[in-house]
Order: sequence, then C-alpha cells, then structure tokens
Amino acid sequence: MSGNSFGQAFRITTAGESHGPGNVVIIDGVPPGLSLCEDDLLPDLRRRRPGQSKIVTQRDEADEPEILSGVFDGKTTGTSLAILIRNKDQRSRDYDDIKDVYRPGHADYTFDAKYGFRDYRGGGRSSARETTVRVAAGAVAKKLIAEAFGGKVLAYVVQIGDVQAEIADPSSVTLEQVEQLSDSSPNVVRCPDNDAAGRMLAKIEEVRSQQDSIGGVAEIVATNIPPGLGEPVFDKIKADLAKALFSLPAVLGVEYGIGFGCATMRGSENNDIFTTEESDDPSAESAKVITQSNRHGGMLGGITSGMPILLRAAVKPTSSLSQEQPTITRKEKRPTTVRTRGRHDPCLLPRFIPMAEAMVAIVLADHWLRWHKPC
Amino acid sequence: MSGNSFGQAFRITTAGESHGPGNVVIIDGVPPGLSLCEDDLLPDLRRRRPGQSKIVTQRDEADEPEILSGVFDGKTTGTSLAILIRNKDQRSRDYDDIKDVYRPGHADYTFDAKYGFRDYRGGGRSSARETTVRVAAGAVAKKLIAEAFGGKVLAYVVQIGDVQAEIADPSSVTLEQVEQLSDSSPNVVRCPDNDAAGRMLAKIEEVRSQQDSIGGVAEIVATNIPPGLGEPVFDKIKADLAKALFSLPAVLGVEYGIGFGCATMRGSENNDIFTTEESDDPSAESAKVITQSNRHGGMLGGITSGMPILLRAAVKPTSSLSQEQPTITRKEKRPTTVRTRGRHDPCLLPRFIPMAEAMVAIVLADHWLRWHKPC
Amino acid sequence: MSGNSFGQAFRITTAGESHGPGNVVIIDGVPPGLSLCEDDLLPDLRRRRPGQSKIVTQRDEADEPEILSGVFDGKTTGTSLAILIRNKDQRSRDYDDIKDVYRPGHADYTFDAKYGFRDYRGGGRSSARETTVRVAAGAVAKKLIAEAFGGKVLAYVVQIGDVQAEIADPSSVTLEQVEQLSDSSPNVVRCPDNDAAGRMLAKIEEVRSQQDSIGGVAEIVATNIPPGLGEPVFDKIKADLAKALFSLPAVLGVEYGIGFGCATMRGSENNDIFTTEESDDPSAESAKVITQSNRHGGMLGGITSGMPILLRAAVKPTSSLSQEQPTITRKEKRPTTVRTRGRHDPCLLPRFIPMAEAMVAIVLADHWLRWHKPC
Amino acid sequence: MSGNSFGQAFRITTAGESHGPGNVVIIDGVPPGLSLCEDDLLPDLRRRRPGQSKIVTQRDEADEPEILSGVFDGKTTGTSLAILIRNKDQRSRDYDDIKDVYRPGHADYTFDAKYGFRDYRGGGRSSARETTVRVAAGAVAKKLIAEAFGGKVLAYVVQIGDVQAEIADPSSVTLEQVEQLSDSSPNVVRCPDNDAAGRMLAKIEEVRSQQDSIGGVAEIVATNIPPGLGEPVFDKIKADLAKALFSLPAVLGVEYGIGFGCATMRGSENNDIFTTEESDDPSAESAKVITQSNRHGGMLGGITSGMPILLRAAVKPTSSLSQEQPTITRKEKRPTTVRTRGRHDPCLLPRFIPMAEAMVAIVLADHWLRWHKPC
Repeated sequence: MSGNSFGQAFRITTAGESHGPGNVVIIDGVPPGLSLCEDDLLPDLRRRRPGQSKIVTQRDEADEPEILSGVFDGKTTGTSLAILIRNKDQRSRDYDDIKDVYRPGHADYTFDAKYGFRDYRGGGRSSARETTVRVAAGAVAKKLIAEAFGGKVLAYVVQIGDVQAEIADPSSVTLEQVEQLSDSSPNVVRCPDNDAAGRMLAKIEEVRSQQDSIGGVAEIVATNIPPGLGEPVFDKIKADLAKALFSLPAVLGVEYGIGFGCATMRGSENNDIFTTEESDDPSAESAKVITQSNRHGGMLGGITSGMPILLRAAVKPTSSLSQEQPTITRKEKRPTTVRTRGRHDPCLLPRFIPMAEAMVAIVLADHWLRWHKPC
Repeated sequence: MSGNSFGQAFRITTAGESHGPGNVVIIDGVPPGLSLCEDDLLPDLRRRRPGQSKIVTQRDEADEPEILSGVFDGKTTGTSLAILIRNKDQRSRDYDDIKDVYRPGHADYTFDAKYGFRDYRGGGRSSARETTVRVAAGAVAKKLIAEAFGGKVLAYVVQIGDVQAEIADPSSVTLEQVEQLSDSSPNVVRCPDNDAAGRMLAKIEEVRSQQDSIGGVAEIVATNIPPGLGEPVFDKIKADLAKALFSLPAVLGVEYGIGFGCATMRGSENNDIFTTEESDDPSAESAKVITQSNRHGGMLGGITSGMPILLRAAVKPTSSLSQEQPTITRKEKRPTTVRTRGRHDPCLLPRFIPMAEAMVAIVLADHWLRWHKPC
Repeated sequence: MSGNSFGQAFRITTAGESHGPGNVVIIDGVPPGLSLCEDDLLPDLRRRRPGQSKIVTQRDEADEPEILSGVFDGKTTGTSLAILIRNKDQRSRDYDDIKDVYRPGHADYTFDAKYGFRDYRGGGRSSARETTVRVAAGAVAKKLIAEAFGGKVLAYVVQIGDVQAEIADPSSVTLEQVEQLSDSSPNVVRCPDNDAAGRMLAKIEEVRSQQDSIGGVAEIVATNIPPGLGEPVFDKIKADLAKALFSLPAVLGVEYGIGFGCATMRGSENNDIFTTEESDDPSAESAKVITQSNRHGGMLGGITSGMPILLRAAVKPTSSLSQEQPTITRKEKRPTTVRTRGRHDPCLLPRFIPMAEAMVAIVLADHWLRWHKPC
Repeated sequence: MSGNSFGQAFRITTAGESHGPGNVVIIDGVPPGLSLCEDDLLPDLRRRRPGQSKIVTQRDEADEPEILSGVFDGKTTGTSLAILIRNKDQRSRDYDDIKDVYRPGHADYTFDAKYGFRDYRGGGRSSARETTVRVAAGAVAKKLIAEAFGGKVLAYVVQIGDVQAEIADPSSVTLEQVEQLSDSSPNVVRCPDNDAAGRMLAKIEEVRSQQDSIGGVAEIVATNIPPGLGEPVFDKIKADLAKALFSLPAVLGVEYGIGFGCATMRGSENNDIFTTEESDDPSAESAKVITQSNRHGGMLGGITSGMPILLRAAVKPTSSLSQEQPTITRKEKRPTTVRTRGRHDPCLLPRFIPMAEAMVAIVLADHWLRWHKPC
C-alpha cells in the first residue's frame, strides 16, 4: 500500500535512503537456474554512479552490490533474491542550510504534508540514490529477458535544451555508440549522434558555469520483443511502461511511437500497415508479421506487436542549484532564499539512461513471466 | 495477473466485451455511508455514449447501469459494489469482413499472438465498449473525492489536428464551458475555447467526409486536491495517473505540468517558487503553502503539492476507417484490403473526455483511501 | 484492500448480498481455450442450493448462472470471465425482528462495529448466499485443473455431532458415494460411510425437531496433484488452502494430514518414508516418488509432494435458531431475546461440501497458473 | 507471485537462506512517527534464537539486527523499513550426507520437483532460519498495535506429546509466566502451567535421549483488540490469521475458539450470548458489548468482536533426527538411510512461540492499517 514494490511476477521491493546505512532490493520471481553473480550488476551500476565524468555529480558512491540471497553455486534458486548496496558516506553532513526550508522543485514540502516530518538528509527516500538498487534489479531483468527471448533494452539522450539528436533508426543504435565515456569524448552525454552530443555537452557546460541546470529527453528502445506480451485492459504494457518511467524522479512526460505527434495525424496516415518479412514468399503462412512503419511504437491494444518498443521520456532540469533561489521557511513560512551546496548534475539525462533501461527491462521481465512459465 | 483490476484501496475489476451480454465492474473499497444510486452514474455515462452528436459514432448503446450490490437504503455499505451495464445489441452482426484479417492500428494481430485466437466481434475485450463501466466507477470515485475533500476533476479537448485551444487558466475552466452539447454548438467537441472549438469541428467534419479520422490532445485538471496524496517511490501519483491514462485505448503520450516543454528549460526558470497565500500576513505560520507558478503540475516527489493537478494526453486518430486500407489475412498472411463498416468516431477526443476524468478520479480516490481512513 | 478478491493468477472477485439484485464473480486468469458454458456450473450450484432435501434450508434459490463475458464460441477467451447469479427473491421480507438486535453467533454486532451500520436483510454480505458465486468459480477451477493435470477435488462429511464416519482410504472415495441425494437415502448428509450417514441423519433430525442445530467436520481430498505446486514461504499451499477454507462461514478449525494428532507423535513415527512406486525396478531413476504413508497430507515445505492432499475443516452449528435466545438490542444495548424465523439448515455440513471443494479447486488452479504457463 | 510477501497495508517481504550471507525483511506500511531502534527487536529475537537452553538446538546464531532504512532520529519515517540479520556461520559445512538424499519430512523432494534443484545447505529457503526476520518484523508490529490500541499478543505451549496444560483463563496469562527461561526452571518449555511444564520437559528430555522428537500444540491470545477489525469475505481475520500460522514451518492444524470441539456442539450451547460490561447500568447505550463466553474466539463473520482472539496451532515433531531413517537417493531413487547431524530441537514448540506471536501481531497491524488511518 505504501508503494515500495513494483511488478507482479517479477516483483521488486526496495528500501533505503540517501544517507542511511544502505539501499536494498528484494526481487521476487526470478526463475531458478539463471546464472548470476555480483559482477553482472556492476556495468549498469557504474553507468548510474555519480562522478563518472565532469558533467555529473561528484558525490562518491562506491555502489558495490552484495547478493544476500537467492543465488547458490552461481545460479538463481527461484527464491527471493536480495541485493544490498551500502551507502559509502552516511554521515549527516551539514544539512542545516536545507533543514528548515522548502527547496524549490524538491519533495520537501510534499513529504512534510504527507508524513508530518521528513528525513532532510539529502532528500531521504526521495533522493535519486534510491534508484541504485533499481538499476541492480534491472541488470537481473536484462539477463532474464536476454536469456528468455534475446530481448535487449537500450536508452540514450535525444535532446538537451534545444539541441536535438538525429537518430535515423532507433533500433539500430548500439550500446557502444551510447557509451563512449571519457571527458574528451562528446558521448559523455550518452547521445549516439556525435555531432549533437558535442553541442549538448557545450550546453551542459554553459549552464553548469552559470550554476544552473538544463532539461532534456531520453529515448528507450527495446528490440527482439516477441509479439503477445502485455495485457489488454489496465495492465497494457504501454501503461506499465509509463508507470515505470514516471516512477523515476524528474520525469514530466512519456510518449511512445509517434507520441504527441499523433495529434496532427489522420488515421489513414497514422495506421501502420501489416505485412510479412518475406511477403513474396508463397509459404507466407509461417512468415513473421511486421508493420511497414512503427508509429505505433511496438504495442497495439496494450500488447506487443513484435516491432521494436519505442519510448521517450522528458526529464526536467535538476532542481538543486548552487545559485540562490527564493523560497519560504518550513516552520514560519517566511520568505527566505536557499542554495544547495555540493556538486549537482547540471543535467540529469546522462545518469537517467541506465535508470530508464532498468525500469523498462523490469516491465518486460514481469510481463514475460506473467505470460510464460519461467524459462 | 491478467490485469483486469486497477487501484488498491479503491480497486476496480472489470469484465465484458463489446458484443457479449454486458459489462460489469466490481468496486472494492467504497467506504460505507456514501449516498449513491443509479442516477448518479447517468450523466457521465451519457457523455461517454455514442450517438450524442453527429461527430461521434452512432452505435446505439443505452448504457443503463444496474447497481447489483453494495448499496442499501441509498447508501453504500462498505462492501463490494457491482455495476452491470448490459449491451443493448449483442447480436453478432456481420463481422465476416474483419474476421480473417488484421485491421491496421487494431489489436487483432496482438490478441492472436497472445491468446491464440480472439473474439472478433467488434474488438471484443479491446473495444472501447470496455470503458463504459470505467466511467460508471469513475462517477462513484468523483462522488467520493467530492465528499471527502471537495475534489473535482474536469477534462476538455485542447487540440484536434493542428487546431490548438487557448486556455488562459486550466483550473478555472467549468463543466458548463465544456458541455454545451448540441449539433449547432461548436462545443460538441468539448473544447472550452469556443473559437478553437469551431475550427476543430470543421476539421472533424472534413476528415469524416473523407472517410478519415484525426488525432488530438486532451487536458485534465484536478482541483481542490489536498497536499500529501501519493507515495514517494513506485506509486508516485504521477506514475499512477500516467498508468491510468495509458490504460485507455489510443493514448500515445502523457505529460504533466510543463511536460515535454521542460526539455528546453533551465532549472532557474523551471522551478516553481514556494510562497503562501497571504505572504504578508504576520501570522503566516498557518498560511496555505502555494507555488507562484504551476510548471510542476501539482505533484512533487510523487506527492501532491496542493496546486491543481494538470495532465495532458495525446490520442491517436481512430484506426477504424470506412476507406480501404491494405493489410494481410489472418491465416495465410496474404495481402488484402479492409474497410470497417459502421459509423466510427472520426475523432476519439470528445468521448475520451469522460473516460479520462473517470480514470483520474479513480486514482485520486485510491490514493485518498490509501492515505486516510474512509470518510 | 477490502478483501473481496482471492487468488493471484486465478483471481476471483465477488460482490453481492443475500437480498440485493444478485451476486457476481469476476474470474481473472482463466487461460484461453477452455471449453465452458453455463451448464458446466449447474451441478455444483445444485449441490450448494437450499431445498435439495428436508435437512437443508428450504429457501428458494434458483441459482441460474449467466456468463456475462470471457467466453466466445464455447471457449474461454483468456480475458476476465464474469458470472451473474440473480437472487430470486430479493424483497425485503419482514426483518423487523432482527433489525434492532444482535443475533448470537452472527456478524450483526461486528458489522456495526466496523461499518457503523449494516444491511440487516438476512445477513447482507455476510450471508452464506455470498458463496453461490464462489461455487460457480470453483466449477471453472475444477474444469481447469482437470484439463491441466487430471486433478480432482472431492469433499464429504466425516463427523456430525459425536457420529464419526469410518473412511478406509480418503483418496478412493467417489463422488457417487457422496452424492446419493434423496430423502430416503442416508447420503443426504454427504457422508460416504452409509452406516455413519444413517446415524448422522438421525442426529440432524433430532436437533431440528428441537429447534436446534449441530456442528461437524468435513474432509476434502485432492488427487492427481503433481509434485511441485506451491511456494516455500508465505504462500505455502497449506497456508493458502487454510485461508480458503477459513474464508468460508462457520469454520473454526482446519487441519491437514495427521493434523492435531501430530501433537502426540514422535518424529520417528510421524515422518513419512520416501520410496518409489516400483522400487524394485532397476531403472528406478524414472520411478515416481511416493511416501509409504500420508501423515503429511500431501504437502511438505509448503509444496505438494504428489501424494493426495488431505484436509479437514470443523464447522460450527448453525447460529440461527428458531428457538428463543437471549441477546441485547442494537441501540440501547438492553437485554432482549431473538428467534430467527425461516427454515434454517439444522446442520451446515451437507451444503458446506461443495463450497469447500470450490475453494480448494480455486487454490489449486491458482498455484498451477502461478507455476506453469496457461495450458 | 512467488509468495515472499505477506500482508497488505503492513506488508513484509523477506529474503534469505539458512547458509547465505543473511536474511532481510522489508516492511512496507509502518506509519511515520513510531519510536524504533534495534534494541526493540532483540527480546523476541532472543526468544527465537537457538541455544537458549539445553532443549533447543545449539546452532550459534547471533541474530544482531541492523535497521537499514525507514528510521530517522529514532522514529519511523513512514517509508519502507529494512532489517538485515546476517548469518553468523555461513560456511558450507559438510552437507554431503544430505546433499543427495531426500530427508523424510523435509522439503528436499518438493523443492526438487518445483525448482529442478535446491540449495541443500541446511534447508536453504525452507529452513526455520527464514523466520528470524519474521520475528523482527513482528516486534515492529507489536510496537505498532500496542501504541495504536494497546493490543497485546502472547503465545505459550499447551501440549507436548500427551502432556496437556491446564489454563484457566487464556487472556490472563502473562509474559512473565511464559518466560522463566533457565535450565533449572521447567518453564524453559514456555508453558505457563508449571506442573505440566515439568512433565513436558521430562518428555522432551526423554525423546532427545532417544534421538527422537515430539510434537505439541501452541495457544496464542491477543487481548485489547477493538471490535471491527477484519473484512467480511475472503480476508476474514480468522482466514488471514490461519494463513499466517500455516505459513510457519511444521504447522499441521489451526483452530480458534472452541475449534474442532464445535463438531459436537449444538447451536444453543455454542452461541456466545451478547451482553454488556455493565448491564445493570441505566445508561447502557454506551456500555461495552461483550459476550458471556468466548467459544467464538474473538471473531464473528471475519471481524473482531472485541473479545480476546484465541488460536491454537498444532506443530509436528521435528523431522530432522539423529537416528537413522530409511529414504531414497535423489538421483537414482535407490533405497538408503539418512541421519541428520547437528543438534536439533527435540521439540519445536518453545521456539515456535515467538514466531507465532510475530505472525499474529503482523496480521493485526495489517488489518488495523487497512481499516484505520495510520496512528
């Protein structure tokens, strides 16, 4: 009821705050027999981790996962799998400057309204730190869907401020194109269009130098998805994917396929036409059904069509700013100002990428297990 | 697991197809003592019903609800409440033309892939007919949130094709402005901007005359919402609202507050500044906390801020077209064409409005009950 | 949250009161392709129905089920399946005598304490009438487990008052032995031991003539159950079966296998020894594993062992009595007396039998679907 | 779906095996503002811990809990609360003797049937070690119900073998009577009847000296329970309590109130008569409603009556025995023998007591939160 679980057949339950001892996730529903060890979790945890490059926050998070249960002799056992990631630095640093004010764009006021008080150390449960174990669970989900049906999930940045990437074919973008992480490479922003990435990086540097931040858009593509995943009414796979992405911090919009662009379309233009991969084959009965275009984004009636799933999420600019912003005090509701110390991400998008992939992979694993027996 | 339920504390479970005997919803969690009778359900059911005006489908649906349980002496009892709405015309009309083909944009192919076969009569479970009982449940939710905290939910059309409405203040739009339904009135499109509504109507007439359809965007506003509703992690109220809207047919995008517009914003521009309603009051401690602007759309950290909740949903053009469209046959996967008989909505938006309101009201009722004891 | 649903993968949600328009169940999770029609539901509904013989209540309930959804061309579609059973006589008869008092043994007082008021017409939601649609759902579950793995569920009476049946081998009792329903046959009590059944009938007649009632014990056996069903921790199949049986009215005890008899056993006596069906077979590797005895009742560690599942449920004597009983008034809490008009079951056991079978079949169907993909 | 969660509004999710790194529980739904620290968890953990006296297993388990989240400044925050208890000794000791055989009475065979393989180290997930974190969560639930409504839960042993305790009034038994744990005291068995306790201890010593074990019965009493807790249909509080107790290892029977004794009762004898605490008070309208007797065990129609809740659970004799028992091998299914090394509990009952209390407290906390808003 308090909403710390997500999914049904592949169900994750999380706990942890930014400055408590650690974060933990229990995954219920991992089928038995999947090869798994801590090293499998590291690549995505590193992509999420602060301090990878100069454009993300420098907070030191080691993010070393410990699998507490559910794995025996290198294989999952089918019982609940717990992963613990300790917070390296849980000292209550100097939060006096934010303790008694409502930071603009943050959950300070709404937590007070809901709970009567809040853990003011760095955001507590509403901190993006909470996503660490989601990314770990997502790594398990990725392994599962890869083994079950060859499924792949990849996300990348398509817009930062007014810089938009040109992506000819979303389903052919590779992880290597997205992950060229070095300070000298424009791809530190995780945009596979190198030219746009350079301009995005410049934009990020500009706002950072001005103690400001900038928003953007991420695109997530899932390929090798079998047709038939999803449920036709409330648990449409598009609905569960949207919930998954909106459950991440700072997301203000989600669209799939042609998205908001459908508003200006006519049905005769917008409908994707069914055909087969080898339509001239006389034995077409066994041919794979595809659509000639993918404005529908891989889902029809809440169920996957077998075409790539295509989603986009709008992410707002970081609310924490080093510059002073007007606000009010917590108790007397008096006008004051606040500026948040520490080094913030001037743009959330690069670190949002692995989080988005994780949530999409979890939804796909969940619907796969809801539909099929464990692999 | 099959996804025919939605919500937790205010939980609806639905059943029914477009051409079966009827549709039924069981609502679990209605608190005892709420005044309720069938007449309370009629206004929204009528708004959803086909045939209200010449721009919507003329299918004859009486939509007379029968409350089967959960109400005694005009009050809810606190036990499960069932509402039955029979289908007036459930004869299997001539569906031979669509039985063996995959209609573009429809769930025909994906149902086949999932279930192995499908009820081909008018879409079966994937028909918009399924939303009838959602609207009935939404009417109950609206009564509940109105009584519990004076909450109101109102939706309207803001875009049809390239015609966009000008709405100065979403939270001051009234039901009367939205519902001026007569064939002579432009507001048959449910857009409160009369000027835009006229152009929208012309656009709809144009595509209808061409046996085509057109997409658009709906805006949903919830007012008088107390701060503190929602959960901070997976069940963020923005996540549940998005799932609710994406669970409706034909939705391809959802955004709240500034939405996708956040991509080009800086943090210093985008953050809404906290203040109080009477900020110059010396006894401001009791003053109501508000924000000077509402780019955040009424939710921060997954929890309501007390500002109006503001959502937009993009709805694709109707997939069913009277004109011929290329497709393939079900069995041999051979190229063929299909045109769908009957009178379709040339634009889904006007009838989408009560469905969207219903789903938003259900989410608000659910989170209210999850947080508070029954009223 | 209000507890009108049961199960996860085969999930039933019910609504309805004893004197409202009807009772309805929505079953979510029935796999596609199962043959089903209303006639499949009738046999068990008739076994549950009042008025079958002189020892059960004569209330007239037609119990004609209508499948509202989820079946097309005689096969389940995989979508939610709704069954409606109207109450034949829903007139509010003269309930003035029970309206303002708390009937002993009934839920009158506890409903008042929970809801603040109650539907006093014949028990409302707490009436055994509510089990009608459970029995209908159980008939669907029985079809599913029979088709999926040949599973069978059979219940019968083993004790009425101090009369105990002798059942040599629970797993060889047949439906024919249990169901010899005519007023001239002792088996109207649904006890397969004819000799005991005769004495049970005499006992029931005796208490009935004295305007009294009598308790008893039912035994439920499930055979052809594959090993491996169930979950090892909270959803142990023994735990879900116990919840299912205790969710029926009037159940005060549940035990399985040797049950409470285990208290006086030593481990060396109580452990059932594993062996194989053909233990002298040299190729025993493929032999079916069995136990030499079945004190464990077919479940070990919460998971089925492949041996018959064996349960017993104690059912209290009917609380409604035609004789006067002392109690207090609802409002002023003054001493008074109450006697309940109408013809009550002097013993609940005979009609409890199909209810118990239904709930056990539902649990088995649920765990089968949780474990396996749909058949 | 895999059943590692229990409860709805107070929901626990557990992970961990007997020989993995540790066990963890996430509690979702603890209201904000409850005082809590690790020390609050220790008393019940110590009662559950092996090695407290010579009649329980000597396995060394430190059971030092660490609260990972959900508590700030000594108060719960309202967000998910995780508790980690590391296994002190997780070396894979010599399990070669049990690795390839099916131990009688254990879940070895059923795990193989379900998962295809198993963690054979000391039972893995099916070990009673898994209950450690249940007891920790139960300590939180006990604090919550004590603060919310003064509720108390106490369990004790009423039968070991054929020795039965005489308990005049279950609701007046005290924790001090149950917990007089020293090797010289008979109450090491947790039976408040000192005379019976002495004979129980002798019985346990006898079976231990014979490398055998013995079963028994525990009684659980919950007092200060407000009327109105519970739900009327599937989530009857009696049903949830039964599920809770049957989810513990080795439970073969659960009964409440008069239990199986109801089989021989007449309605006129069995019905508990309503009265008020001060029935001669002229202003009786405000008098507390009670029943003159408590054969109903504190619940009517699935909802608490305000009378003490009274439950009994039958616990089988420990399956692990130091003596040799016949069985078959895992792979070839050949006859063999097994004896389990290590020091086992010759009787599970003394350590079962805190587990049973924990589960009952969790159900009460859950139903309290489902009914009321957080305290």
